[in-house]
Amino acid sequence: MSQTNSIDDIFEALQDLRARRPLVHNITNYVAMTLSANVLLALGASPAMVHAAEEVEDFAAISDALAVNIGTLSPDWVKSMKLAIARANKLGKPWVLDPVGCGATPYRTGVAVELAGMRPSVIRGNASEIMSLAGQTGKAGKGVDSLSAAEDAVGAATTLARQTGAVVAVTGAVDYVTDGQSQIAVHAGHALMPLSTALGCALSAVTAAFAAVRPPQAAAAAALAVFGAAGSAAAQNLRGPGHLPAEICDALYTMDRDMLVRFARLTG
Amino acid sequence: MSQTNSIDDIFEALQDLRARRPLVHNITNYVAMTLSANVLLALGASPAMVHAAEEVEDFAAISDALAVNIGTLSPDWVKSMKLAIARANKLGKPWVLDPVGCGATPYRTGVAVELAGMRPSVIRGNASEIMSLAGQTGKAGKGVDSLSAAEDAVGAATTLARQTGAVVAVTGAVDYVTDGQSQIAVHAGHALMPLSTALGCALSAVTAAFAAVRPPQAAAAAALAVFGAAGSAAAQNLRGPGHLPAEICDALYTMDRDMLVRFARLTG
Amino acid sequence: MSQTNSIDDIFEALQDLRARRPLVHNITNYVAMTLSANVLLALGASPAMVHAAEEVEDFAAISDALAVNIGTLSPDWVKSMKLAIARANKLGKPWVLDPVGCGATPYRTGVAVELAGMRPSVIRGNASEIMSLAGQTGKAGKGVDSLSAAEDAVGAATTLARQTGAVVAVTGAVDYVTDGQSQIAVHAGHALMPLSTALGCALSAVTAAFAAVRPPQAAAAAALAVFGAAGSAAAQNLRGPGHLPAEICDALYTMDRDMLVRFARLTG
Repeated sequence: MSQTNSIDDIFEALQDLRARRPLVHNITNYVAMTLSANVLLALGASPAMVHAAEEVEDFAAISDALAVNIGTLSPDWVKSMKLAIARANKLGKPWVLDPVGCGATPYRTGVAVELAGMRPSVIRGNASEIMSLAGQTGKAGKGVDSLSAAEDAVGAATTLARQTGAVVAVTGAVDYVTDGQSQIAVHAGHALMPLSTALGCALSAVTAAFAAVRPPQAAAAAALAVFGAAGSAAAQNLRGPGHLPAEICDALYTMDRDMLVRFARLTG
Repeated sequence: MSQTNSIDDIFEALQDLRARRPLVHNITNYVAMTLSANVLLALGASPAMVHAAEEVEDFAAISDALAVNIGTLSPDWVKSMKLAIARANKLGKPWVLDPVGCGATPYRTGVAVELAGMRPSVIRGNASEIMSLAGQTGKAGKGVDSLSAAEDAVGAATTLARQTGAVVAVTGAVDYVTDGQSQIAVHAGHALMPLSTALGCALSAVTAAFAAVRPPQAAAAAALAVFGAAGSAAAQNLRGPGHLPAEICDALYTMDRDMLVRFARLTG
Repeated sequence: MSQTNSIDDIFEALQDLRARRPLVHNITNYVAMTLSANVLLALGASPAMVHAAEEVEDFAAISDALAVNIGTLSPDWVKSMKLAIARANKLGKPWVLDPVGCGATPYRTGVAVELAGMRPSVIRGNASEIMSLAGQTGKAGKGVDSLSAAEDAVGAATTLARQTGAVVAVTGAVDYVTDGQSQIAVHAGHALMPLSTALGCALSAVTAAFAAVRPPQAAAAAALAVFGAAGSAAAQNLRGPGHLPAEICDALYTMDRDMLVRFARLTG
């Protein structure tokens, strides 16, 4: 693991994020919108959900980063995603792709592949999504849930990073980040997290927020560590997944260096 | 009450559901999406929200059950509902109709009637919705809230079941399930539940999940008993409706035979 | 401050609202829908989210008030907003405009200006939105967040009220309500509230509910006082914003005269 991604560096990135309060433009799915906004606010960012073709380019131009998530995609929304991405690219603003459910249907896979070809800064997905996006078959996902472990997708993530130029983050019990060359493993999170909807989507939004203050690979590692630590801290006193989203927001809001050290660990 | 619907049979259905982890395809309203996903996850199912005409047929084909809810309908969504339903029917997959607000406007009533004619496995609604859908006038609903008690709609439910071939569940302080011949009453739930939005919609999603592992009437009875028991258990220590959705998820996640026995009762 | 807006008058308005249980038609953004519905239910109103052009006029006709919010606007939705507004106006039903993010993009500002010209009963926004809508430049907002204090927008609010005939409520650490002549300041709320998404949107829905039982200025003052008091009461025991929405619902549900007196104060 490079020093760039040590806990101290990650905590410094969080402090920078809180100081800068980046405006994160989200074009995301209906299920994840409210949670993503709350997570970004608790983290210290300023979220906005803006999707009309009539304004996405203007909004991308005033934002610090863009998060694109295809969870509840439809052709009008995909059109807006492309407009926003093109403007973000033109202005050199970072953007994150979350290819939700890639592999589940030909339409979804086709859109994900097309967007992945538009030079995202970071692609974040579960193992099934990343393997499908990299053109590997393996075990298909079950709808939007992965049937493979993140470990199984590290090769696919490396391939995908080389294909697209993006940093690729594949999340699961252990998370992996790769730029196609080096690789970081993030040990954080909790087994209850997959039982609360849209936490992965919110993580992608968090990744976009960090991408406003750090280069892609450091941003992805910071997002995974901070969000995973929040999830792990949040789950300590729960008997089920019901209060997990609220508790994660509180953990993000109160996140300090000690919490990061206690609940997240990075290895090379 | 048939033995088929005793608490033991219902708990067995829940165990089967948890073991199989059915993929439930939801085409539902914006208000209910997040809650429905969280409730299905806590229950033990795998939810997905997919509505684009370009992929609903493909997604229906890989799903174990379909839940269709017209709460925030518009023509594009209705078109997708019909495509998904047709594919589910063709493949013999169960699907549940939630005719939210049927009776409130001519457009909404017309769509509900049309979908009810497409051979749903189960129709679940409140008294006003079921009475309207059965062509009875009675007291109209107040927007999406019922002004009639479920008891008042048992006749309409029986008529509707005979008209459509669906099992009909009408929910209120007491819930009733009928296939047009026999009838089951489910005593569960809590007075706070109508004060938390979209719990009825989430219940329809739960019904779809059970329909993946049981025939329609047993599925509906199991859904009402399990969800009602969860609501009743969840409300025990609350001073208002705010935390009810999170507590219901926790109750579903921790649901065991004792909780079912304590908080749900079925009569013939 | 006029006696009309004393705490006793506000509590009486709340009691009237609970007794009448007004049906509030919401055409609002995706992020705010679930929260708005839950807040309205906890308050004692009956919420519905209905946006299809095919039924918004019919639904406006059976509703007691309409809340229009442009947070996630697109042309189809704007078309429906106009249809619903026209019908509400024709039938003399009150409606509230929430010009979310006005000033952020030309499209958004144009729509907000157009809707503000359709005789809303109340316009509720943050300082940046109200200043932009009044045609003042000042500090622009950061996406949907205000960079100005409400105090800075009192002049703009007065101008806007005179331009549109609407009562204008500008919210921040202190809230101000004006009909273009007199002005009321509402001291309530809590510093955590801007860190939980869509609370302002929910407040606009609450304003619509009060507009069903009180004239616009009294309705706006009551909404600000009751919702602000709920937020302030809710935040007492929180360590972050995560549970704030649920706690606000509980505070609204249990709101009594003592809570209002303790957590809200009005000045002229």
